[in-house]
Amino acid sequence: MRPEPPRDAETVAGLGEFGLIRRVTEGRAQPPPTLLGPGDDAAVVAAADGRVVASTDVLVEGVHFRLDWSNPEQVGRKAVAVNLADIVAMGAVPTGVLVGLACPGDTRVELADGLFAGMWQEAANAGIGVVGGDMVTSETLVISVTALGDLEGRAPVTRSGARPGDVLAYAGRLGWAAAGLAVLGRGFRSPVAVVGAQRVPEPPYAAGPQAARAGATAMLDVSDGLLADLGHMAAASEVAINVRTEGFEVHQRLLDVASALGADPLHWMLTGGEDHALVAAFPTPGQVPDDWHPIGWVGKGSGVTVDGRPYEGPTNGWEHWR
Amino acid sequence: MRPEPPRDAETVAGLGEFGLIRRVTEGRAQPPPTLLGPGDDAAVVAAADGRVVASTDVLVEGVHFRLDWSNPEQVGRKAVAVNLADIVAMGAVPTGVLVGLACPGDTRVELADGLFAGMWQEAANAGIGVVGGDMVTSETLVISVTALGDLEGRAPVTRSGARPGDVLAYAGRLGWAAAGLAVLGRGFRSPVAVVGAQRVPEPPYAAGPQAARAGATAMLDVSDGLLADLGHMAAASEVAINVRTEGFEVHQRLLDVASALGADPLHWMLTGGEDHALVAAFPTPGQVPDDWHPIGWVGKGSGVTVDGRPYEGPTNGWEHWR
Repeated sequence: MRPEPPRDAETVAGLGEFGLIRRVTEGRAQPPPTLLGPGDDAAVVAAADGRVVASTDVLVEGVHFRLDWSNPEQVGRKAVAVNLADIVAMGAVPTGVLVGLACPGDTRVELADGLFAGMWQEAANAGIGVVGGDMVTSETLVISVTALGDLEGRAPVTRSGARPGDVLAYAGRLGWAAAGLAVLGRGFRSPVAVVGAQRVPEPPYAAGPQAARAGATAMLDVSDGLLADLGHMAAASEVAINVRTEGFEVHQRLLDVASALGADPLHWMLTGGEDHALVAAFPTPGQVPDDWHPIGWVGKGSGVTVDGRPYEGPTNGWEHWR
Repeated sequence: MRPEPPRDAETVAGLGEFGLIRRVTEGRAQPPPTLLGPGDDAAVVAAADGRVVASTDVLVEGVHFRLDWSNPEQVGRKAVAVNLADIVAMGAVPTGVLVGLACPGDTRVELADGLFAGMWQEAANAGIGVVGGDMVTSETLVISVTALGDLEGRAPVTRSGARPGDVLAYAGRLGWAAAGLAVLGRGFRSPVAVVGAQRVPEPPYAAGPQAARAGATAMLDVSDGLLADLGHMAAASEVAINVRTEGFEVHQRLLDVASALGADPLHWMLTGGEDHALVAAFPTPGQVPDDWHPIGWVGKGSGVTVDGRPYEGPTNGWEHWR
């Protein structure tokens, strides 16, 4: 029988920086956009368009994720997903991610294994690889992810292009993560669908480039809450935005959870963050792709209204240190 | 007279995430490679070559820098410099950096101001801008930097291309940061030149693309120590590398500090990290650019020798958790 491995070998300190890098990169197949993967001073990624889209997100244990609520794979998937959502929200196609991991020396190797398994899995969902990164020691577990993307010859779809008369639509999920958070906050672990949505967002990666090809004038991903993020779009575009709740398709699961908790599912959809749905403006209703749900209009003025009135309820999105 | 501002306004928590982002980005002029700067879901950076070089570094307070040894500007400069060194070590020209900042809510705004002033200054030294980033709350101060670069139509210069017969040369400083560390470790604050080198490396940004244009077969930046990093090049290239110490020009400042501390300046040059000099292999002596110092040869076999013999002394580079 094999001897019990020394405890040291079960921690990242036992494995060492270079051992850990080898462990999470070796044997991984890199998809076509990765021209040079991990192991050198820097990675090389395809940028056929002649421009590259880039976004960085930093996730901190206890702030952005809890390891008593999520397993390491889920945290890894979430770290990559929230960042890729920013790339597709520009109308770009993801091409690669770089990962920085800061963690204590007594972090168990299986936690790092799980994090990277999740990051590779989510990257694969978008057709890309983990192309490079850095691993360092830190008292706090911090994950930084930088995603790259390609615009395929199109103009980037910014937040500032919405024009009066545009129709507003979203793709992906709204309110699911908020419902999951409400469930977890009361100590429940089910229903699995909404709890899973809180642990791992599922941004609609294909919908971003799809909207850009369809002529979207403005787009962003809903990280802080629909109304909060539409506030950013309205301000950047110098327009007013009105959301019509009759356009919302409230999923039966949200209705069920809301009923059980005595909550309003529409409130979750309007103010819940972390689902990373995409919301975009299109010049005409006919340009809204099939997978997108029309939910409002862009007008002259400023600010965001719901069914023509200011929303009654807390709409502030998440802001760090606030 | 103006009233004393409330204490709250002096911290990043008082300013808030969005206020801090505005504070460190507004009014900054972006250089030509920045096609879309901070403020949207992602940045857009020129990648004329059709490929993009990318590298991430994570710096942790107490591990990579100490705010009792360095001021915030110096930390900001260092964070960008160590990352840009990776880009130029591929033979690429820097095009932009993204910054992730994780810090406690009671972090003073002037610290964040200083960090970003340093990051912008070092980026400007390389002709680029801070194009995007993320700011989050964390108990530990962690800075993640991702740099992007353009290969200008050349093949990337990796670690694995050195061939027997190549001449080895370096550009930049060797041993200065180690000398500075020795000085600081004994409680001194001078001489300023070596202490400054420990606080802020000065990688020779132009020398990387210069070496690539001259036909360098392999290149890396010296982050862990010359012998340790040459070990990485020898292993990746499957060659032996011999360093000839008679090729070293030991700067008078290093001689002076070494004499005062009873240390060996050559040991600092061979094993000291953090200066981010570039070391490269060239097919012929005639291809070594003027700014580069020939210091050895590439041969058949494996491993790194000094003057034909194994180096007597500790040569291991820095490895996290070890």
